[in-house]
Amino acid sequence: MTLEQLSYYIAMAGTVAFASSAVLAVADRKVDLFTAVVLGTITAIGGGTVRDMILDVPVFWSLDQNYVYVSVVVSILAFYASGFFRRKSIHRLFLYVDGFAVAMFAIQAMAKVWKLDFGVPTAPIALGVVTAIGGGLIRDVLVGRPTLLMSRELYAIPVLIGCILFAAVLHFAPEYGFLGAIVCVGVTFGIRAAAIRWNLQVPGWAIMGYKPSESYEADRGTGG
Amino acid sequence: MTLEQLSYYIAMAGTVAFASSAVLAVADRKVDLFTAVVLGTITAIGGGTVRDMILDVPVFWSLDQNYVYVSVVVSILAFYASGFFRRKSIHRLFLYVDGFAVAMFAIQAMAKVWKLDFGVPTAPIALGVVTAIGGGLIRDVLVGRPTLLMSRELYAIPVLIGCILFAAVLHFAPEYGFLGAIVCVGVTFGIRAAAIRWNLQVPGWAIMGYKPSESYEADRGTGG
Amino acid sequence: MTLEQLSYYIAMAGTVAFASSAVLAVADRKVDLFTAVVLGTITAIGGGTVRDMILDVPVFWSLDQNYVYVSVVVSILAFYASGFFRRKSIHRLFLYVDGFAVAMFAIQAMAKVWKLDFGVPTAPIALGVVTAIGGGLIRDVLVGRPTLLMSRELYAIPVLIGCILFAAVLHFAPEYGFLGAIVCVGVTFGIRAAAIRWNLQVPGWAIMGYKPSESYEADRGTGG
Repeated sequence: MTLEQLSYYIAMAGTVAFASSAVLAVADRKVDLFTAVVLGTITAIGGGTVRDMILDVPVFWSLDQNYVYVSVVVSILAFYASGFFRRKSIHRLFLYVDGFAVAMFAIQAMAKVWKLDFGVPTAPIALGVVTAIGGGLIRDVLVGRPTLLMSRELYAIPVLIGCILFAAVLHFAPEYGFLGAIVCVGVTFGIRAAAIRWNLQVPGWAIMGYKPSESYEADRGTGG
Repeated sequence: MTLEQLSYYIAMAGTVAFASSAVLAVADRKVDLFTAVVLGTITAIGGGTVRDMILDVPVFWSLDQNYVYVSVVVSILAFYASGFFRRKSIHRLFLYVDGFAVAMFAIQAMAKVWKLDFGVPTAPIALGVVTAIGGGLIRDVLVGRPTLLMSRELYAIPVLIGCILFAAVLHFAPEYGFLGAIVCVGVTFGIRAAAIRWNLQVPGWAIMGYKPSESYEADRGTGG
Repeated sequence: MTLEQLSYYIAMAGTVAFASSAVLAVADRKVDLFTAVVLGTITAIGGGTVRDMILDVPVFWSLDQNYVYVSVVVSILAFYASGFFRRKSIHRLFLYVDGFAVAMFAIQAMAKVWKLDFGVPTAPIALGVVTAIGGGLIRDVLVGRPTLLMSRELYAIPVLIGCILFAAVLHFAPEYGFLGAIVCVGVTFGIRAAAIRWNLQVPGWAIMGYKPSESYEADRGTGG
């Protein structure tokens, strides 16, 4: 298996994770199959779509429609087999796959934008984050629930850290770009995985207007 | 009258239906005239705008500004004459015109995307749906009310059925494309009209996590 | 200092005002630093980004990344020094700077769109308004609070008045375009400043379904 193929399979696994987690995230809203498929697909391909629209390149799923097919099929499966996907062990597995996909999509997107020499270095970082979390944001807005941005979950922050790190690599040591990409995916995923494993949240002192005496509740399970 | 002209007049009637239904949909929110015009116009041209941005072609209303003028004028009329537009018979008439416009916009958009050979067949279907319901989604998000996707109304599903059907025609029998378009508009509108006439909703068994003992209320009147 | 430089400095001051007012607007939501930076930056550059995507030109901040840098730095400052930015005199000053920036961004955007001969005259007006208020709309949607459009504040209406006036100048007396731009910025800012100074709101008779006996509360402080 070549590296390209590996990367492609990982992207597809990420699409599976994004679409299924999206459908599960709205399971309590009594949505119908159509809405489930729309939300699953938007979550899976929405971030990359916004990225490509800003980049002014053809949207990636118009060139490779497998992303759409996988999103639709997985959304349908998640709709009908939500019991399976909700099993604690499966759910947990998907949280990690989702975390890995987020990391990989962000770094892949950065590499793409950087190669186009588009607004280096801020645009690659911004569009890396948009690719990773944009679909989930659109989903939450359409569903009418608080977005990722209003939660204390450590979901987007690891992505930002990984992207800034990768920008540093590409700027100061471009010859190590490939190695850097692997390390940055690892760092992003590592922080996210630790957050899942130990239920880490954004620490109180990093919250605006935080007073130590107040208590917070974690209001969201998983993002996308 | 040529067919092109007929199609153009229908598109304009659809724009009227979209803009007016949008303004009426927010009538209870005490919006001002400016907001009414913005929401009416976004509902009428928003879906097609997103489609053209994804397609990377000039947005349609920059080439034919009548869409903007009609949207603005109709929004103003609907704002000041909301009493007229709300009359039961008029309201009902507009529901049907809206349903017909939705069907026609979706199929027209599909034909446009298919001709550009853009991501055939998934992109034409996806962008057909986006064209038909995208403007209404943006409106609902800006207004802060539950979007179409969270309702059980049969609004978007007929569009999807019509689009898939039309994709099948264009793929398997492209020589019947024109006839197929008419039939698919008819099918889409037919289902929608039946839903308006007999108050049909998405059946319970097609809802995730549905339990027959629960009761639902229909929470939205009209979409757009 | 040339005029170009002056215009550039004003744009940067506007970016400062947009980003800082956005962060302050969500100060009560207990957001973390990452979210503050994302919201501040989206508010500052979001409207122009949507404009450039519709125009199909490279987004402005990919060509001049100072807009991003300024947004990020100011958002961080506003996050940590929200006490300073909230001081009554400073807050009031920023309301005016914000109002001036809104006026200037709208007129600048109009000039840009008009020069591209893109959908003249409706597209320049529409995109002028989008540039001025689009970022604030996206922010409010992501935060989950009522958007500008649902408020009675005189924020977007002065922009629309200024844009229509400027369109009239560019159409009927293009040789006075530069003078007209200054006057239109002045008119837009003048109305907005009066609204800030005397707490003006959209008058009751311009509200759909308004009944004089009802009382309204002003539900939003500042826009963006």
